Amino acid sequence: MIKAGIVGGTGYTGVELLRILLAHPQVEVAAVTSRANAGEKVADLYPSLRGLCQLDFCQPSISSLADCQVVFFATPNGTAMTMAKQLLELGIKVIDLSADFRIKDQALWEKWYQMPHACPDLIADAVYGLPEINRQSLASANLVACPGCYPTAVQLGFLPLLENNLIDPKQLIADGKSGVSGAGRAAQTSALMSEVGESFAAYAVSGHRHLPEIIQGLQLHTAGEVGLTFTPHLSPMIRGIFATLYGVLRGDTTADEVQQLFASRYKNEPFVDVLQTPQHPNTRNVRGSNNCQIAIHKPQNGKTVVVLVALDNLVKGAAGQAVQNMNLLFDLDEAQGLGALALYP
Amino acid sequence: MIKAGIVGGTGYTGVELLRILLAHPQVEVAAVTSRANAGEKVADLYPSLRGLCQLDFCQPSISSLADCQVVFFATPNGTAMTMAKQLLELGIKVIDLSADFRIKDQALWEKWYQMPHACPDLIADAVYGLPEINRQSLASANLVACPGCYPTAVQLGFLPLLENNLIDPKQLIADGKSGVSGAGRAAQTSALMSEVGESFAAYAVSGHRHLPEIIQGLQLHTAGEVGLTFTPHLSPMIRGIFATLYGVLRGDTTADEVQQLFASRYKNEPFVDVLQTPQHPNTRNVRGSNNCQIAIHKPQNGKTVVVLVALDNLVKGAAGQAVQNMNLLFDLDEAQGLGALALYP
Amino acid sequence: MIKAGIVGGTGYTGVELLRILLAHPQVEVAAVTSRANAGEKVADLYPSLRGLCQLDFCQPSISSLADCQVVFFATPNGTAMTMAKQLLELGIKVIDLSADFRIKDQALWEKWYQMPHACPDLIADAVYGLPEINRQSLASANLVACPGCYPTAVQLGFLPLLENNLIDPKQLIADGKSGVSGAGRAAQTSALMSEVGESFAAYAVSGHRHLPEIIQGLQLHTAGEVGLTFTPHLSPMIRGIFATLYGVLRGDTTADEVQQLFASRYKNEPFVDVLQTPQHPNTRNVRGSNNCQIAIHKPQNGKTVVVLVALDNLVKGAAGQAVQNMNLLFDLDEAQGLGALALYP
Amino acid sequence: MIKAGIVGGTGYTGVELLRILLAHPQVEVAAVTSRANAGEKVADLYPSLRGLCQLDFCQPSISSLADCQVVFFATPNGTAMTMAKQLLELGIKVIDLSADFRIKDQALWEKWYQMPHACPDLIADAVYGLPEINRQSLASANLVACPGCYPTAVQLGFLPLLENNLIDPKQLIADGKSGVSGAGRAAQTSALMSEVGESFAAYAVSGHRHLPEIIQGLQLHTAGEVGLTFTPHLSPMIRGIFATLYGVLRGDTTADEVQQLFASRYKNEPFVDVLQTPQHPNTRNVRGSNNCQIAIHKPQNGKTVVVLVALDNLVKGAAGQAVQNMNLLFDLDEAQGLGALALYP
Repeated sequence: MIKAGIVGGTGYTGVELLRILLAHPQVEVAAVTSRANAGEKVADLYPSLRGLCQLDFCQPSISSLADCQVVFFATPNGTAMTMAKQLLELGIKVIDLSADFRIKDQALWEKWYQMPHACPDLIADAVYGLPEINRQSLASANLVACPGCYPTAVQLGFLPLLENNLIDPKQLIADGKSGVSGAGRAAQTSALMSEVGESFAAYAVSGHRHLPEIIQGLQLHTAGEVGLTFTPHLSPMIRGIFATLYGVLRGDTTADEVQQLFASRYKNEPFVDVLQTPQHPNTRNVRGSNNCQIAIHKPQNGKTVVVLVALDNLVKGAAGQAVQNMNLLFDLDEAQGLGALALYP
Repeated sequence: MIKAGIVGGTGYTGVELLRILLAHPQVEVAAVTSRANAGEKVADLYPSLRGLCQLDFCQPSISSLADCQVVFFATPNGTAMTMAKQLLELGIKVIDLSADFRIKDQALWEKWYQMPHACPDLIADAVYGLPEINRQSLASANLVACPGCYPTAVQLGFLPLLENNLIDPKQLIADGKSGVSGAGRAAQTSALMSEVGESFAAYAVSGHRHLPEIIQGLQLHTAGEVGLTFTPHLSPMIRGIFATLYGVLRGDTTADEVQQLFASRYKNEPFVDVLQTPQHPNTRNVRGSNNCQIAIHKPQNGKTVVVLVALDNLVKGAAGQAVQNMNLLFDLDEAQGLGALALYP
Repeated sequence: MIKAGIVGGTGYTGVELLRILLAHPQVEVAAVTSRANAGEKVADLYPSLRGLCQLDFCQPSISSLADCQVVFFATPNGTAMTMAKQLLELGIKVIDLSADFRIKDQALWEKWYQMPHACPDLIADAVYGLPEINRQSLASANLVACPGCYPTAVQLGFLPLLENNLIDPKQLIADGKSGVSGAGRAAQTSALMSEVGESFAAYAVSGHRHLPEIIQGLQLHTAGEVGLTFTPHLSPMIRGIFATLYGVLRGDTTADEVQQLFASRYKNEPFVDVLQTPQHPNTRNVRGSNNCQIAIHKPQNGKTVVVLVALDNLVKGAAGQAVQNMNLLFDLDEAQGLGALALYP
Repeated sequence: MIKAGIVGGTGYTGVELLRILLAHPQVEVAAVTSRANAGEKVADLYPSLRGLCQLDFCQPSISSLADCQVVFFATPNGTAMTMAKQLLELGIKVIDLSADFRIKDQALWEKWYQMPHACPDLIADAVYGLPEINRQSLASANLVACPGCYPTAVQLGFLPLLENNLIDPKQLIADGKSGVSGAGRAAQTSALMSEVGESFAAYAVSGHRHLPEIIQGLQLHTAGEVGLTFTPHLSPMIRGIFATLYGVLRGDTTADEVQQLFASRYKNEPFVDVLQTPQHPNTRNVRGSNNCQIAIHKPQNGKTVVVLVALDNLVKGAAGQAVQNMNLLFDLDEAQGLGALALYP
């Protein structure tokens, strides 16, 4: 059994990690930290875990985590970078679900996250935790930077097209829609049900922190410079990311060829599921599961290819993908503990 | 008092017309038809109208409507075109909320609506009921074809850019999101709360009936040929249309100039409200009102302009706009009966 | 025009007051206070009011309100009692939507609200603002204590039965369900959409602050001592109060007699609407309106009478009722400005 | 591996059975029937099952099911009773999730379900599938009548009180709240999101089909005659049953004693979880899990005991309980395949 620790166990990503890890046959959750709730029973804060979780929250210190083989950070940005080095020095693998190690360009990170980076020398070592790209590197990684929820969806949707040079990288549009759990569990007026229920809104259209991360990821797969317009929206639902991606086809690639390309690119991927036209993905079909469903359309047989991507922001967009990465790090079956079907309806 | 009739009073558009007309100071609702519910009290089917509505549903016949000065059709496509001529011959003005008279090209209409047109000689006479474009023509119209909900949002968002030749008409993208009331009140599995609640989905990406209507409308305002990719989505909410529009700027127009252009274009419009950057519209701020809120962004100061449009699909997208048209037809204050503020929260 | 001020204009009750008062033909909103937002435009915080509201928030001081003829308090408990006396001395009528003057027994108030009462000598003067009971007294009142949302629903449902001595006052049960807007607009985890969406919960079952208020109100109408079990629940919706009331019939009153009694008791009430069995009220039919819909059932013709009550917590349960009271205070038509139909769907 | 068949695989109960059984380590789903969809891939109708379900729907015939060891009926009422006898004669165990065999009194069943019973001689043999009561009988049963969702909640909440004679059986009140998935997947206006979203309603207050089932179950545990008022409500959410139960305590039992009684009654039950006061259950903490959470309150230390019960209508209220029964029938660990934690948030 792999001993796992979770730093920041009181947010939605933390409790989702618990839900998945408590059921994982190869993992024992050894420590869950919370500065504010240390000493309390985890199951008192999260009654959904009653019966399966006997742990108390502990202080977020290195000593609390020293027995672990792997530590997940489900913390706000800025925490993992202050603890990662010490943990790594103890031989503990670190899987960071925050943004601390996602951006390779330190200055760019500091500009978007508005703080100095506390541990710049580890940035280069961190492996970006998108298994569909970095499976090889992840097998030997010690520090994983898990992608954000939007970046997971947008990269999985654009990659086959960019890798094959089928679309103009300068004219990419990603219209993203997220459930409100992406805003986290902190008390804030803008995430109240009275504010977001029954309403659809755009936000951060002038620039969202996931933009540089997405561009960095896409840029690796194309020679031309990536130009991306990324428009995030908030949809009145708890879970789910839906990304509608638009690209301009360079040549006269047919819809069938694009469909075939996606099917081929992802045919061995356990968690990327390419639908057949005329199916449309929706977030309910992946709610609670680690699956990402993708469909490709070429409306009116024009130059624009439309890629539709649906995933659960807390699973494939966060905790599930982190566990998928953990499985790779420890040479387990990549899908272990991640087989849960979506909760429908 | 203007005597008004409503054909098809049992759908969501019909009951919304009732909500607005019952409170309109210059209108008396004289007849509400329903084939299935004829003889029943309207307020029994719609208890939200109790107290203000004493009418019974009547049969949808010309004689039931003969006393009216104006008849609204809130029917499925294919009904208004069978009754409009007789009503017009009686001197009754006709405001059609369905699609029957929206498309000027009869063959195109028949292709998308999959039926022969029953009254092709009236198509040319019908005035497209978008007051922001056709205010003059509406003043003397007898037959009005009210725009669809998506077309209202998409046209209001693109018009200032096209009219001023600022964007390439060949590369337009409209990413639309609708509440589920747009699917109507007919019993269908796909509109059940268990199906659409807590889920976000795309639909009809390969071709939605509003596409030819939007293209027809946009084409009037640009010399170049319009090329539009229109992607409709279903958002888990009852009311609201949100359109995110993408255009490629031709020259080096600044964000301020675009903002100024929209402000100027709509400054005298009673129901189009241009927000200042960095505001983002959302559908809750227009829920139940006839307002359309628009914001313009130019992310990263690039070539792509992003126009955000929010309106209530049942009000500015249907019943409210129909009453706005009626006010114009009868030379009333255009905003009369349409002053209700949005219901927030 | 009556000049009205609103203290505490940034909560949901405050903005709902604005929505109603801005459309009231006899009222001019002269001042809206907010300590935190003083100096900002009201319509910037609440874009749903754009176009109809040009006011800026001002500081909550007596001088800001000195020009008003009536001041509404839409503040947290504990504020109105510190300002009411000064306003009354200036000849300004005070309508308090908070709980400060609802309970006649000062010690009881202080026990449930956990603070000393700052203005005990006004408690006796305050008229409880339930027009269906106190219409006469309200006509000459200067200080009105508007009922809570649950108390409005529970009292309107039980009153005809208690007034006529038909049920045992010792065995009353009120099972209440509220939308989440009742929790207000303050940032709190427990009102996040991720917490309350798609979930139904009981809360404060051991004792809710509305309990003593309800008992006080019911006690006025029965000789026996009132014994009430009140169980509040949170329903995953924004607006609405639904109360399911259970009473044990003393004699062999028939269902028809009870129905007749309710119909007779409320036949002249503009905002209490008694449905015919087998209709069931629901909150959507009163959403946004000042109506309270009531139905009575006597299941299996047993001893238990079930009264179903639906109203909008922000309208008849707060701001609408406050305006109804204002109309009475100023000898206006009681229903003026309150005619809006429910927003359906 | 136990070969299982599902008759009526296209409703919500059927797909929930699939979700659970496909992950059950001792079960192979051998047949899923659907008259309307025979020949289609199950995963085409339910894309949430893609990857784990390769089956096609087959016709609902005895021959399609002949290879099964157990057949689940997730059909509308009236189907299981026409097929059960033939299956039993083939040695196949039958677990009926519909109401066909729930009521022992044939005439009573026929009165409430408005049809003649097609198989009255099996009624007596059917074991009522509430493991917390009938665990022993279930071990040797061949025909199981799974309880309805409300009856599961109401019985689990009242049982400890009735078994110990602590409350007056004549004065029971059950105020039930259900998510809309309880209405099934059939197309009906009353379950449209536009109708039930954002609204709370009572329904069938004069008499719901679950009433005789609940009374029959409670009557077994008390000498006095059961008098129950059962008031069902529809809450705007997809999943969940919440029951608020009221009983009149006979003696001076303390809150602690009642709490202790419940804790003791259910301490060995794998799926009944008694919370400590002052906790309140809510449906989100059991969404997707087979758990039933219960809390007991004695407000103001009065005579009325309030029992709060939360479960997922599709799991412990239907498919999960059916699998729990199957485990008992086949002498498996009762909890096998039912360990999934609730999906929170």
